[in-house]
Amino acid sequence: MSETFPLALKRVIKNLSRLPGIGEKTATRLALFLLGRPKEEVYELAESLADLPEKIRLCRRCFNFAEGELCRFCLAPDRDPSLVCVVEDPADLSAIEASGAFRGLYHVLHGLLSPRDGLGPKEIKIEALIERIKREPITEIVIALSPTVAGEATASYLVECLKPFPLKITRLACGVPMGMDVKYADQLTLRRALEARQRL
Amino acid sequence: MSETFPLALKRVIKNLSRLPGIGEKTATRLALFLLGRPKEEVYELAESLADLPEKIRLCRRCFNFAEGELCRFCLAPDRDPSLVCVVEDPADLSAIEASGAFRGLYHVLHGLLSPRDGLGPKEIKIEALIERIKREPITEIVIALSPTVAGEATASYLVECLKPFPLKITRLACGVPMGMDVKYADQLTLRRALEARQRL
Repeated sequence: MSETFPLALKRVIKNLSRLPGIGEKTATRLALFLLGRPKEEVYELAESLADLPEKIRLCRRCFNFAEGELCRFCLAPDRDPSLVCVVEDPADLSAIEASGAFRGLYHVLHGLLSPRDGLGPKEIKIEALIERIKREPITEIVIALSPTVAGEATASYLVECLKPFPLKITRLACGVPMGMDVKYADQLTLRRALEARQRL
Repeated sequence: MSETFPLALKRVIKNLSRLPGIGEKTATRLALFLLGRPKEEVYELAESLADLPEKIRLCRRCFNFAEGELCRFCLAPDRDPSLVCVVEDPADLSAIEASGAFRGLYHVLHGLLSPRDGLGPKEIKIEALIERIKREPITEIVIALSPTVAGEATASYLVECLKPFPLKITRLACGVPMGMDVKYADQLTLRRALEARQRL
């Protein structure tokens, strides 16, 4: 469809097609949309993208996104440093933070164990977590990995790794989500919800 | 989900969310993907976008995208200048060109008539087409607008405008598309295909 387009337009289409979930047709639609927008808007998008690699780094303590050495949680004086929540990535961290129910610190793994993709304990900051436990006054680790195959496997591995330490290890409860009709919940979720049933 | 992200990341997410069909969730996914890519790749995307508004202009004769004054078709010595194909936008032009069945010139309307959106004959280069017909040795206008409500309305209006000129006016045939099972073709398409049935 873009065969006859000028080079500068084809270049944008090619670059946009590299993004996940964006094929050549969508990339073409986006590029043509941008061509119809005011210059300032296109420059603002371009600038913000060019800024990204320089401005964002990882917190050297918990590996959350940070603009300086440490992230906002590691810098905050009012967070409980004895409680550390282990998450897969910064988006999961954001979701947990948005719940307002957690006042400790975080530890971002940036991935789950996946031997097939070459992701071992070193790649996903599990070793860094263990170093942190040795150094910091941590008393409880809350594992907040998704209840998926890879999440479960990573959680089991983590539990093994953390056994030598005098820690309380907990995990996000798994059960029927709020607002969901029980009849539509899958069998595994129901089994977990039954096993973890709570006294009222 | 992006509440706790650094400013530079939120800025990219906000800008990407402005693109059509991209909501905040998709924008977040794209921005996080880019954060994980090599710097050079992100810079290449940013640069190509920043280049777009300056490098692409419209051909002053046919309004196709061009890198100079005239587009590649208007510059090509081997195209038939007596035959002009009217299309809605450059992507439609590209599709027709890819068919390899057209060797004339083009005229890009950049839209269809839409009084509700303030798009009249002046806005969509119909006046420019009439000026072109007065100046150039055109003998046939091929209307290649999509057979949609707006496309049909614009085509009818065009035919009215072109009546005063000694021109052959033709239109892309409408019928059952190649490879489609007749039983799945819609009624209107079948009616058109029957009306335009061809002797074998």
